[in-house]
Amino acid sequence: MEWTRAKRYLPYDQWSAERLLKLQAQADRSQYQLRYHIRPKSGLLNDPNGFSYFNGAYHVFYQSFPFGAVHGLKSWMHMTSPDMVNWQEQGLAIAPDTTYDSHGAYSGSAIQQGDKLFLMYTGNHRTEDWERIPYQLGAWMDKTGKVTKLPQPLFKNPAGISEHFRDPQVIKANGKFYAVLGAQTASDQTGQVMLYQSKDLLNWEKAGFLHFTDEKLGYMVECPNLVKVDGKYVLIFCPQGLSQEVSDYQNIYPNMYVIFDDINWDTLEAVNPSPLYNLDGGFDVYATQAFNDQDGTAYAISWVGLPDISYPTDDENWANCLSQVKELHLKDGRLYQTPVSGIASLHEFEQSLENTPEICAVTDNQYELELTIAPNQQGNLYLQTDKDLKHGVKLTFDTAAGYLALDRSQTSQPFNEKYGLIRSSRLPAQQAAKLRIFVDHSLIEVFVNDGEQVLTGRYFTSPAASRIAFDQPVNYRGHYWDMRPI
Amino acid sequence: MEWTRAKRYLPYDQWSAERLLKLQAQADRSQYQLRYHIRPKSGLLNDPNGFSYFNGAYHVFYQSFPFGAVHGLKSWMHMTSPDMVNWQEQGLAIAPDTTYDSHGAYSGSAIQQGDKLFLMYTGNHRTEDWERIPYQLGAWMDKTGKVTKLPQPLFKNPAGISEHFRDPQVIKANGKFYAVLGAQTASDQTGQVMLYQSKDLLNWEKAGFLHFTDEKLGYMVECPNLVKVDGKYVLIFCPQGLSQEVSDYQNIYPNMYVIFDDINWDTLEAVNPSPLYNLDGGFDVYATQAFNDQDGTAYAISWVGLPDISYPTDDENWANCLSQVKELHLKDGRLYQTPVSGIASLHEFEQSLENTPEICAVTDNQYELELTIAPNQQGNLYLQTDKDLKHGVKLTFDTAAGYLALDRSQTSQPFNEKYGLIRSSRLPAQQAAKLRIFVDHSLIEVFVNDGEQVLTGRYFTSPAASRIAFDQPVNYRGHYWDMRPI
Repeated sequence: MEWTRAKRYLPYDQWSAERLLKLQAQADRSQYQLRYHIRPKSGLLNDPNGFSYFNGAYHVFYQSFPFGAVHGLKSWMHMTSPDMVNWQEQGLAIAPDTTYDSHGAYSGSAIQQGDKLFLMYTGNHRTEDWERIPYQLGAWMDKTGKVTKLPQPLFKNPAGISEHFRDPQVIKANGKFYAVLGAQTASDQTGQVMLYQSKDLLNWEKAGFLHFTDEKLGYMVECPNLVKVDGKYVLIFCPQGLSQEVSDYQNIYPNMYVIFDDINWDTLEAVNPSPLYNLDGGFDVYATQAFNDQDGTAYAISWVGLPDISYPTDDENWANCLSQVKELHLKDGRLYQTPVSGIASLHEFEQSLENTPEICAVTDNQYELELTIAPNQQGNLYLQTDKDLKHGVKLTFDTAAGYLALDRSQTSQPFNEKYGLIRSSRLPAQQAAKLRIFVDHSLIEVFVNDGEQVLTGRYFTSPAASRIAFDQPVNYRGHYWDMRPI
Repeated sequence: MEWTRAKRYLPYDQWSAERLLKLQAQADRSQYQLRYHIRPKSGLLNDPNGFSYFNGAYHVFYQSFPFGAVHGLKSWMHMTSPDMVNWQEQGLAIAPDTTYDSHGAYSGSAIQQGDKLFLMYTGNHRTEDWERIPYQLGAWMDKTGKVTKLPQPLFKNPAGISEHFRDPQVIKANGKFYAVLGAQTASDQTGQVMLYQSKDLLNWEKAGFLHFTDEKLGYMVECPNLVKVDGKYVLIFCPQGLSQEVSDYQNIYPNMYVIFDDINWDTLEAVNPSPLYNLDGGFDVYATQAFNDQDGTAYAISWVGLPDISYPTDDENWANCLSQVKELHLKDGRLYQTPVSGIASLHEFEQSLENTPEICAVTDNQYELELTIAPNQQGNLYLQTDKDLKHGVKLTFDTAAGYLALDRSQTSQPFNEKYGLIRSSRLPAQQAAKLRIFVDHSLIEVFVNDGEQVLTGRYFTSPAASRIAFDQPVNYRGHYWDMRPI
């Protein structure tokens, strides 16, 4: 099927249920399908939205186009969980069914207010001349999950801001509410983070740009979100078109963060901001959304997928997934991300490991592998590989020189080669390396040294291969667990 | 919406995807939704079909009408599992999209042949004059889950058999294949079990009626299936219109079984058949399907739902579920049904119990409760109840006289009152009673004395109440476990 504009924006009531059932079956049966991460029932998933705690449960929504692996008419799909690990589908929460979100219920956030959850998001509207108007919209979700949209937009793009104005994240700070938005200046197409403020979530006024760097942030910033981590602020954001002289990144667009001590709410200056850092050292993390839960702890969840990139499952009419939830802390001026503690509840069938080159001959390609590799070891760890280590995903390490790389060049279905098939990062030299590796059929998440780095990537290789093995003798200890599906 | 004939039989491609997404969301959000049993993604679920082992996994399909809680145009939805507990949706497997199944891909079974799974089912066709023609159809499922229908029907109803001829179960016996079907005689509208035979699954000829009782089996038999249990044959079947003088049952239609030593394949006489017994002592078991796995062990799974009965979730546009899988054995001339062993893998948070009237003040209404009630105890065990024991599901027991009853009269949404709100059964007098009670929000399954009896029922009561308590001091010991969702 050719994805004409008309097809992409066809109202949901004009698609047939038969097609949807077929698409759901096709996704269900995919050999690459994920089993313990959030994935689309059919079609395309992108940004996590509305990550929050409300009414005794954690909530996350995701951007959904249910009818194919393309960025068509978007809606919000709703998931809930008692522990941020075992997610239950709650179904379509925001459909693109009004004038203001006629061309997509785009990304946004959620915050509890009274006994309801306030959802704030960008309604994407196109005029007959295909001119884009970004409306910032509000809706209330009650305890039964019923969503009622506000009849009128909260605000539009202000003077001086182009049609690229979206992804509001609502937070409470400085005695009021702020909405943190991605914006593009109209005059010189520069990416900015803009704040709006409100006392009641309904009436909003412009506060201004958040100043946290002197660097030019490319031509647009997407999905900015501010979160408190261990007493400081962390801004997580996605600059598009960022110069690689500012920060070394290899993905088409990076997902970055900045730490600062505080915000001067009068001038909107970040106090003592850090440089810009990459959030993830892997291939596919974007649009990460974080929030502070009822105890103040910060958690993040990422879209594992990138804009403007094709994935092999596009041919199966579905694409992308969300990462596992990551708990955030600060250490030595950097953001540490660790797997949410509840992930261990998925563990089954523990196996202790020590020094054997072959870790498992046969697996379900659905496991956690925790390894401590001794200092001064070199080698390659092959995952989802075969007898000859010919195919698979590879982790190359050198704990003498201090080097780690995630390598998908030997997978049977390489993709997105233009942006490189290897992502490498530094380890402390001559020290042991501690890895927590999560594999879920076509997703790998590697947490390095208690979360100092995370390397996340999709990969597509034959599920018939499921062996885990080093290519040479290595001094290590560790554990293997099967992960039960959610 | 009024369920006209046109709406019930509207082709799947004429329903809108928007409606299906809304129906799925509505089912997802139901307060009565099941969490560790197979349930419909939307709409109505009925008979389990094609219960089998193939390609390293267990398979079960279910009869599905995805567009509402009515018996509309049926299809087969496919589930797979490594352990008959953790089921993964595989999507729509047989759509009603040919002339022969134009009015429903009705019930059937599956058997491995070579490297494929053979699916045999009844295609329901209606002529323009609404005359029903039951075609017995075949299809091959390959290892990827792809289903290819045979172009022509295998056979139709033979002379002397009315349009009520359906639910083929294929087994291997006597050096060939047999299909076991439910049939109605045309002359006097009597229910029968009919056998067809084949050497190759493709060419079939009539074998005749299976003779296993002298009783008249009402006006129709549905879902007959033959399984070997501990060296004997067990026939499980659903007679409709059976006289209550033949067997005492309270549900609209019973699900029954007969045990016999062997079958004389020349005369199709069952050797030494037992009387007719009720398979389940509860409210809602029907269309149970059993099969012998690769080791010969017999397993069964039931539709928890009844034909011609409305359920409270009809108002939410979804209805029914499947039971957990039950392992079958013979003891003292009766069929014993025990929870499939893997169900224990869902256990979380074990708690030991002894003699306290209150078992749990607050639960998720998603648990197993294993109790051994001492001899000569009387009382009521309330589940999903409140402080005053006013609402909830009730188990009334008397281990002196020997009596057990499942009572849904105190639920906040009683239904189907015409057929009674209590199901009672005998226990051995003056002996301890061992109960394994599984609760899943709106489903209770009670296994009595190691499977000698099973009492299964749906119930609909406020989820705000979740207490488990006896109404008086009782001498018992036991265990409580939360069950994790699948």
